[in-house]
Amino acid sequence: MIEPKLPKGFRDSLPNQEIKRKFFEQKLENTFESYGFVPIDTPILEYTEVLLGKGGGETDKQIFHFTDNGGREVALRFDLTVPLARFVSAHRSEIELPFKRYHIAKVFRGEKPQKGRYREFVQCDFDIVGVDNAQSDAEILSMMISSMQVLDVGGFRIHVSNRALLNDFLSTLGIQHKSSDVLRAIDKLAKIGIDNVKAELAESGVSENQADLILSFINPVSEDYIEVLNHLVSLIGKETEGAVRMRQIWNILKNEGVQDFLLFDPSITRGLDYYTGVVYETLLDSNPQIGSVCSGGRYNNLTGLYSKENLPGVGSCVGIDRLIAAQEEIDSTIYPSVDVVIFACSDVSPEDAASYGRSLRKLGIRCDAFLGERKIRDQYDYAQSKGAGFAILSLWGDKADLKNLATREITTSIGADEAARLIRK
Amino acid sequence: MIEPKLPKGFRDSLPNQEIKRKFFEQKLENTFESYGFVPIDTPILEYTEVLLGKGGGETDKQIFHFTDNGGREVALRFDLTVPLARFVSAHRSEIELPFKRYHIAKVFRGEKPQKGRYREFVQCDFDIVGVDNAQSDAEILSMMISSMQVLDVGGFRIHVSNRALLNDFLSTLGIQHKSSDVLRAIDKLAKIGIDNVKAELAESGVSENQADLILSFINPVSEDYIEVLNHLVSLIGKETEGAVRMRQIWNILKNEGVQDFLLFDPSITRGLDYYTGVVYETLLDSNPQIGSVCSGGRYNNLTGLYSKENLPGVGSCVGIDRLIAAQEEIDSTIYPSVDVVIFACSDVSPEDAASYGRSLRKLGIRCDAFLGERKIRDQYDYAQSKGAGFAILSLWGDKADLKNLATREITTSIGADEAARLIRK
Repeated sequence: MIEPKLPKGFRDSLPNQEIKRKFFEQKLENTFESYGFVPIDTPILEYTEVLLGKGGGETDKQIFHFTDNGGREVALRFDLTVPLARFVSAHRSEIELPFKRYHIAKVFRGEKPQKGRYREFVQCDFDIVGVDNAQSDAEILSMMISSMQVLDVGGFRIHVSNRALLNDFLSTLGIQHKSSDVLRAIDKLAKIGIDNVKAELAESGVSENQADLILSFINPVSEDYIEVLNHLVSLIGKETEGAVRMRQIWNILKNEGVQDFLLFDPSITRGLDYYTGVVYETLLDSNPQIGSVCSGGRYNNLTGLYSKENLPGVGSCVGIDRLIAAQEEIDSTIYPSVDVVIFACSDVSPEDAASYGRSLRKLGIRCDAFLGERKIRDQYDYAQSKGAGFAILSLWGDKADLKNLATREITTSIGADEAARLIRK
Repeated sequence: MIEPKLPKGFRDSLPNQEIKRKFFEQKLENTFESYGFVPIDTPILEYTEVLLGKGGGETDKQIFHFTDNGGREVALRFDLTVPLARFVSAHRSEIELPFKRYHIAKVFRGEKPQKGRYREFVQCDFDIVGVDNAQSDAEILSMMISSMQVLDVGGFRIHVSNRALLNDFLSTLGIQHKSSDVLRAIDKLAKIGIDNVKAELAESGVSENQADLILSFINPVSEDYIEVLNHLVSLIGKETEGAVRMRQIWNILKNEGVQDFLLFDPSITRGLDYYTGVVYETLLDSNPQIGSVCSGGRYNNLTGLYSKENLPGVGSCVGIDRLIAAQEEIDSTIYPSVDVVIFACSDVSPEDAASYGRSLRKLGIRCDAFLGERKIRDQYDYAQSKGAGFAILSLWGDKADLKNLATREITTSIGADEAARLIRK
């Protein structure tokens, strides 16, 4: 006998979890499609060199890679952004720009598993490739807002900033060449605190005075988007391109009537090197400590590794697992997987169960026929575990006795049409 | 620059393919759920020993396996049946029997890639675990029929047989111990022809006379299910358990009114060793040469490898890729991914596009705003590539000019409600 165990950091998804995950994914897909986004898929396994580029660094250590039977170095994808860049470059002649795609799929990381972190997990990305303008920046934000609304996870705010503005400010300080060190240090502010950030900045050769100016730059002076923006412009000393872009984004989302979900937060920088413009993170009012549930930004060098044409992009990534966890704290109801169970007992023949079931299914009712030989009490447990609201206890030809499991009311000798009507109510 | 190429046997799914695949999967999921089946998921990567058991044989060579960073032997799953057995054993206390589950997910095989065969592909399995009775055998067949009907792939027949009957017959011939050699040889009949099957049987020590009897046993004498069954019973010499089971299955499906989709075909044995009872393959009337599009059967030793409790099961697997290919031969229309495109031009501001788009989306219309700066002619191409039926050419506040792209008719200055009404028509 072999123990049915899984490698560390991997897990099964049980029916109640999987039903919820599919429900979330379906809602997200419908939202993405309502904006004209189309799905793609790419292989889970790719050439290591294609995924890592010249490789090295943190990613390299975290990747699942191996040599295949033909002696080639292959790896499991660790995100959906690199495959997008590869996909767009490989299929450039088959796609129309701007290319709006979404991709919900599994990715793999070899990092140490910890609570809530797994080595295999689902990512849900949506991006617009091929344009660099405020309208596409705003559309991603608009779609983030619509996604959060449709998932019904309570109040939320999108913390938004723009890397270009911080870089403009570093230019005025004469330290624009230290940009990526500064961005990385600031990104850790919430995690490591102000003193540690100062220490990191000092290590990068930023003077104490400069560090104080940077920290005051990223400190939001107001809840009002335009006030914060104007304050940053005054610190930079002029209305830069980044500032104009942030005003345009605001105007578009204000015209949509969704501006209240935005919070201008100059401390947002995002860790990854590839962002070049607007960046954002989404925090839940009810549960800010779980971190951002939807993050992303603009990166203007997507395809440079794979093609001569260097396409810009902007996009975001929904943390489905975190959102499900948050939603379960608000409402832990099990999603019913079935409407009615036909019990197996002496008053129900398999033939009648099959035909009555088919009639109900044609009417849009999810009907489960119990197939074993078990006590009626066990069958009630079964019906409850699937969230069924009704049970059929006896059946002669096309007439059934239907029991409402909540009220215990029994309606006798009804056809499938009438049963469907009662179940739908 | 790195060439954006994929390993052999792997492929991307472009939007038009992916939209179709999702459409098929959604229809199948709805059908499975209408029978009370629930989804699960399992990791793509598992311990090699857990997937292969004592291992060896064909599967071993075809599997993608490697040593992970922690020195453990892991592999990519090659089917969804082994993970089901492992899952049921690991979560025995968390699931109710009978356990009806479906699983649509990627599997990996290292076999030589050929036309229409890939190393990564999607499997779609549905199984009932924990009971061995005619009702569960029939329910899988009923669900296969409903699935084929809902996918709209034209006429089809399910070729059904029962391994127990052939084994009963081999017992009358006194060669029941050669069962698995005989089953494997017969399974190749369509592929290698009668003479080669005879040669294989001879090699296994089956006499020429016995081989002739076996070949006459598996030759269907009629299109009538009951006639074929009665003929087999007469050859076996008695009404065995297998025969009774096949009569019960017939009665249930006849009562459902779907018996005409069944063809009793004693030549069906299925290649895999683990089947023990009813087996079936589904052939399309329009396209029998692509082979079975939905196959499976009963296996009464699912969990023996992982637990002391040996649970029976019955299930089937839909070949989604084959079905999509067959459906495309009937109807090659591109599935529209969007209903209306708002053009980017001097008569449309980004602000108005965003708010009018949001109004349409709230009314259930899929609305794509073109985000680039391109000639109107290019934007028409873009709208066409996404299957849009309508375009918005100018927009002032909440009033738009809507063009029907098929009739070229333009309705001027209408609100989102009116536009949604016209688009829905």
